[in-house]
Amino acid sequence: MKLIHDMLAGDVLSLARLITKVERGDGVPQIMKLIYPYVGRAYCIGITGPPGAGKSTVVDCLTKVIRKQGFTVGIIAADPTSPFTGGAVLGDRIRMQQHYLDKGVFIRSMATRGSEGGLPQSTSGVIKLLNASGKDFVLVETVGVGQTELDIMRSADTTVVVLVPEAGDTIQTMKAGLFEIADIFAVNKADRPGADNLVNDLRNMLHLHTGQTYWEAPVLTTQAIHDVGIDELFMQIEKHRQTMEDTGELSKRRQEQRRREFLETVEHRISAELLQLVERDKEMGRYMKMVELGEIDPYSAADEILRSGVVTASWSQQLAGRMPS
Amino acid sequence: MKLIHDMLAGDVLSLARLITKVERGDGVPQIMKLIYPYVGRAYCIGITGPPGAGKSTVVDCLTKVIRKQGFTVGIIAADPTSPFTGGAVLGDRIRMQQHYLDKGVFIRSMATRGSEGGLPQSTSGVIKLLNASGKDFVLVETVGVGQTELDIMRSADTTVVVLVPEAGDTIQTMKAGLFEIADIFAVNKADRPGADNLVNDLRNMLHLHTGQTYWEAPVLTTQAIHDVGIDELFMQIEKHRQTMEDTGELSKRRQEQRRREFLETVEHRISAELLQLVERDKEMGRYMKMVELGEIDPYSAADEILRSGVVTASWSQQLAGRMPS
Repeated sequence: MKLIHDMLAGDVLSLARLITKVERGDGVPQIMKLIYPYVGRAYCIGITGPPGAGKSTVVDCLTKVIRKQGFTVGIIAADPTSPFTGGAVLGDRIRMQQHYLDKGVFIRSMATRGSEGGLPQSTSGVIKLLNASGKDFVLVETVGVGQTELDIMRSADTTVVVLVPEAGDTIQTMKAGLFEIADIFAVNKADRPGADNLVNDLRNMLHLHTGQTYWEAPVLTTQAIHDVGIDELFMQIEKHRQTMEDTGELSKRRQEQRRREFLETVEHRISAELLQLVERDKEMGRYMKMVELGEIDPYSAADEILRSGVVTASWSQQLAGRMPS
Repeated sequence: MKLIHDMLAGDVLSLARLITKVERGDGVPQIMKLIYPYVGRAYCIGITGPPGAGKSTVVDCLTKVIRKQGFTVGIIAADPTSPFTGGAVLGDRIRMQQHYLDKGVFIRSMATRGSEGGLPQSTSGVIKLLNASGKDFVLVETVGVGQTELDIMRSADTTVVVLVPEAGDTIQTMKAGLFEIADIFAVNKADRPGADNLVNDLRNMLHLHTGQTYWEAPVLTTQAIHDVGIDELFMQIEKHRQTMEDTGELSKRRQEQRRREFLETVEHRISAELLQLVERDKEMGRYMKMVELGEIDPYSAADEILRSGVVTASWSQQLAGRMPS
């Protein structure tokens, strides 16, 4: 594929086009297969946390630190689509503007909802593209603390959870399930009241309940807007990376990623193929009408559809005829 | 099923047991089919917003208001599982304690992650159980603003989005995609600085970009902790309900819910059945090993598995033999 050849040769426009294709679910398996030999060099850093924590600013500053050391950076800002802007929010773009002229930085805002996809799966595909394109680091920012965001973070090698004193006490943090995925905590806007308490709370909880044996998540303070604490943050990221390499945790994590990706791909393709068939099915249309009118419950209707055998029969045919080789 | 018979007769323990079964994915289709004729009377109110906005307190106060009018209430507090507590957070339970002795209130904290499930699907099942058990109102609280939480809110008739002045300016709200689902905005902790600005911002944006033609989302102020503004909130919920009934929107919404549920059920069952088969498959195990070691990319491996035909053949057999009747 010419696009991939050009991307591998360093063409930015081809990279952007490939990302769009992956976001749209257009030819993903083929792209992934072709870039696979080139994936694996980049180190992926995930930045997550509740809305308003200053994640974009942290990403911005971290990019500066990494660039100063001569490394290249790919950035995925995974903004949920807004019904108003149809995509990324202007504020972030303005903040990141200084990097747009830097050829060592590639920035992409990704929709996480809406018609053009943006599933966790497509994010992990975009990470791979940036990886294959030769970036040394890939930074992935997610807004929010839901299941989708946590899933995306599973693609990261090191996950930084950014919190602010006001945006949630420790109990709220526990609720959001962030402890499970945090390799490093950054208490941002650390000049605000309550920062020390949050740091202490986090440290106490981590001390009592650490789940990982090879690494205890450090709790750092940052003021990203004033560029304070970011060098230390990057140092800790590098330390985590080194520890993971030394303990074999990194290769374990990446094996697990590949395993999950394989299972998800199989599941995704099976259900996508099938659902398409099912939706076009006449019987299905008939049951849909009855379900909408409340004449039959959705579960009994599903029974009927699955029992009819129409689906399996036509799927086997379809699959035989349509599989790419 | 005896449990369902007892639940319909008002037995609380049976209701609790059925909820556990639904959360665990144990016999869900059968339960849903049996309760279906009894579902439909309750009105479902969703309460969502970013962490720390005071949603639990709003739910608590709203429950008091609804009880004062003589209606019964079922509450689902959808706390993400924490690795530390293994479920709900103590704080909420303490706040809600006053309602535990009230027989007109049933409270359930739901895990949204972890081994015992807690998918959006299981939440919508629990809503139906509370509905069938004869509650007049079902309140569903979700923590966080991710895709999972937005999906859960699709089961609600009226969705209240709770915000606080500090927890995010309007841009953050847009990012979180809450505008799409909000029928009512409640700016909570409205005695704090910035509340007026947030109210104005929200009103301006709603005015410019309203997506619904039958209803413009009102922006209310509350101080749930002091019980301020909750009567007005409930009045607006009732007004929204009345408007939806008058315009036919309510039945349209519920048709859409049933339609989605049907499609999801079909998809879920197809992929669950298939994935189980795929995981037990010897060929699959062989490819899994290669994927983990990086000898083949996950997409090519998926191709091989799907092309082999093993899956379709054994699935057809399995489906014929195992479908419940």
